Amino acid sequence: MAASADGSRTFHVGLLGFGTVGTGTARILLHTRPPLSERTGVDIRLHTIADTDLDRPRAVDVSGVRLTHDAEAVAIDPEIDIVVEMIGGIEPARSYVLKALRHGKAVVTANKALLALHGRELFMAARENNTSIGFEAAVCGGVPLIGAMREGMVANRIESIRGILNGTSNYILTRMVEDGVSYEEALGEAQAKGFAEADPSMDVDGFDAAHKLTLLANLGFHTCIEFEHVHVEGIRGISSADVRWAGELGYNVKLLGIATARYDDDSPPDGAASGGVELRVHPAMLPHDHPLANVREENNAVLVRGDATGDVLFYGKGAGMMPTASAIVADIVGIARGSALPNFEKLQFLSNSHVPIIPVDKTLCRWYVRFDVADQPGVLARIAQTLAAHRVSIASFLQKEPQHHDSVPVVIVTHLTVAEDFLAAKLEIEEFPFLAGPGAALRIED
Amino acid sequence: MAASADGSRTFHVGLLGFGTVGTGTARILLHTRPPLSERTGVDIRLHTIADTDLDRPRAVDVSGVRLTHDAEAVAIDPEIDIVVEMIGGIEPARSYVLKALRHGKAVVTANKALLALHGRELFMAARENNTSIGFEAAVCGGVPLIGAMREGMVANRIESIRGILNGTSNYILTRMVEDGVSYEEALGEAQAKGFAEADPSMDVDGFDAAHKLTLLANLGFHTCIEFEHVHVEGIRGISSADVRWAGELGYNVKLLGIATARYDDDSPPDGAASGGVELRVHPAMLPHDHPLANVREENNAVLVRGDATGDVLFYGKGAGMMPTASAIVADIVGIARGSALPNFEKLQFLSNSHVPIIPVDKTLCRWYVRFDVADQPGVLARIAQTLAAHRVSIASFLQKEPQHHDSVPVVIVTHLTVAEDFLAAKLEIEEFPFLAGPGAALRIED
Repeated sequence: MAASADGSRTFHVGLLGFGTVGTGTARILLHTRPPLSERTGVDIRLHTIADTDLDRPRAVDVSGVRLTHDAEAVAIDPEIDIVVEMIGGIEPARSYVLKALRHGKAVVTANKALLALHGRELFMAARENNTSIGFEAAVCGGVPLIGAMREGMVANRIESIRGILNGTSNYILTRMVEDGVSYEEALGEAQAKGFAEADPSMDVDGFDAAHKLTLLANLGFHTCIEFEHVHVEGIRGISSADVRWAGELGYNVKLLGIATARYDDDSPPDGAASGGVELRVHPAMLPHDHPLANVREENNAVLVRGDATGDVLFYGKGAGMMPTASAIVADIVGIARGSALPNFEKLQFLSNSHVPIIPVDKTLCRWYVRFDVADQPGVLARIAQTLAAHRVSIASFLQKEPQHHDSVPVVIVTHLTVAEDFLAAKLEIEEFPFLAGPGAALRIED
Repeated sequence: MAASADGSRTFHVGLLGFGTVGTGTARILLHTRPPLSERTGVDIRLHTIADTDLDRPRAVDVSGVRLTHDAEAVAIDPEIDIVVEMIGGIEPARSYVLKALRHGKAVVTANKALLALHGRELFMAARENNTSIGFEAAVCGGVPLIGAMREGMVANRIESIRGILNGTSNYILTRMVEDGVSYEEALGEAQAKGFAEADPSMDVDGFDAAHKLTLLANLGFHTCIEFEHVHVEGIRGISSADVRWAGELGYNVKLLGIATARYDDDSPPDGAASGGVELRVHPAMLPHDHPLANVREENNAVLVRGDATGDVLFYGKGAGMMPTASAIVADIVGIARGSALPNFEKLQFLSNSHVPIIPVDKTLCRWYVRFDVADQPGVLARIAQTLAAHRVSIASFLQKEPQHHDSVPVVIVTHLTVAEDFLAAKLEIEEFPFLAGPGAALRIED
């Protein structure tokens, strides 16, 4: 950083990537009124933008800003204090971020995949070089969730984090619930509207939500859980029949990320969740009056439970040019104002590296399951017996008139059940000859 | 502050007031695991607690903390760095806060009345003494809204703030909507449960919400609007009949605080809302799918609209021992870690002191109104003519069979209308001889 004539410090920012979010970030840095420096007391200057394509027109006037094709040069440029990584993906983003950190620069990024997969390496590099990584934009776009958890809830032991973390799959599920369309139709609509990519796997298979959940869990539980420990299921398998049944039973189907920490009564001095941590992304049925049940369209929402605050809900647009740029600039300002202390990562992450992971088979919840069965005597009895044999207790049982000539849906809602018990019973039932196909099951989160 | 043996800084905290929130704050400062200092990198010590009554048992062990009856001595004690004001009310809280600021101490407070009525004086004193005032706990208890607006949304021009800011009145309205009871019954229940005071005026007449709205507007719009410019209506006048009608029409009745800022296209260099600011607290009808419509019981929620982020919702417990203590400790940590820069108030408040206030008569919204009228010919025509003469356009019109022998309710929903036009029409209609009493009107916020 350099000293200005009036004694205030000047921070020079370099952008790696000049796509949608880069354009939004440049807009805020260059055109905010009053200038950001007046509002924040720090002088922040957009110094250089690097992109492989500098010819494409952008919706921002960047005359006066240096443009280059050489991202690596920006990452190590001694004139630059803060490097914003907006390239996406793992490489070359990872290498540039490491280079910038090793040159003592602070890094700001929205790249949840990079941080979820390589967080330990990157946060260690930040710590070793006495600098920091801002990632407000990596989760829930413009919703200032990271700062709120990191600072606003600092006095809390975080007990759980539950959220709708992926806008694309939430948009698809909203269409399925509200318009009664199939998964394929809803996906097509999302793609047409630009909410889903041509290859939607990252979104609909739950990986994007799982990346974000990893970041939130590590921040909230002060640990460094590897991404591979997150149980991930997506929404591809969900049928409109089950979405309809869920609605009739008083539930909405959502793709949830859930992280819970169990603290022993005699918690260790380091405050670690010695009772274990549970991390899972999967579709779930939420009762209509659940705070997350009515989060519609491409919105995101996260419910954070602190031991002092109770549940706190954060809700808003999870993506988009200006919401994401808002979060990136908040990080830049935070770093420039010094609230991102150099040793932040040491304190927030990595402190309790070895909390036990509770396997998803051992998690407890209620289940919805639909079996399409032949309409013949004794079927219900066999199903009920099998569930009972696996310690699965039935809360409600529904059967309607046959919809097809050869099968009839039987819908069961269970009481709280250990996942492995329920899944073993389901597997056994699926072997019965009167089954028309595999059962469709969804967890219920009350 | 003092330097510890390991070179880290130690911050000594003095509490003024040892009631519910003081007890919660002491609990967190003394008993958090891991100790707050390990989690935050700053050494925070609870030094002294002042209260007029030190004999009453409290749910926290404060052996090792100095206890005194002399709050003023704590406010000026040179050993204390941060003074937490939890006395409530205006005096002597105001004098102690001023004394503390003038002795260069940072102040943390949950006292929204004090800040709403004397904010200019107190923030000026903080600025002159190069220190700061933390007030995260003053709005929405444990929900980290103030920090999120101040830092997380720093890149935004805030366009509006709409919220359910008072838990007591929200509890009362929830009971009226869900149980169909009268205002008096619901208030009695709230008092029995400890959600409402014996004199409930501050809550049910809207003043508490208006205090909080003043703080949020000044923070969001970077100005210093006087409390007297907030239009305040409470919930005393609301009948269960109107709550029922609202439900039938698809609305919930809520007590809302609304602050909106109008920015001219050629906004001035200081970024002031030169088009004016609107500040009002009043009951309103919200459509069932509005993000604030389903905020139930004693919860609080605030919807902040930034030009970059769009609407961001914050939701959670608005009061209580531990949620409020969580916010107070967040402020203490923020001050100790230096993120509350000394010149913060200069930048955030007071910068555009002279934004025009838009009078409530000029605000635009839709209206619900119920007139109980004699069941005779020509009545509807007279009402409709009067509304039309005042440029009030009718969106829907409902009349049911007479419920009493002598009158029948006529319910009207208008299109967008300037408040003074609607109110003039209502006043004129109320003069008609066929009216059984004054009309009951509620704003509709879509």
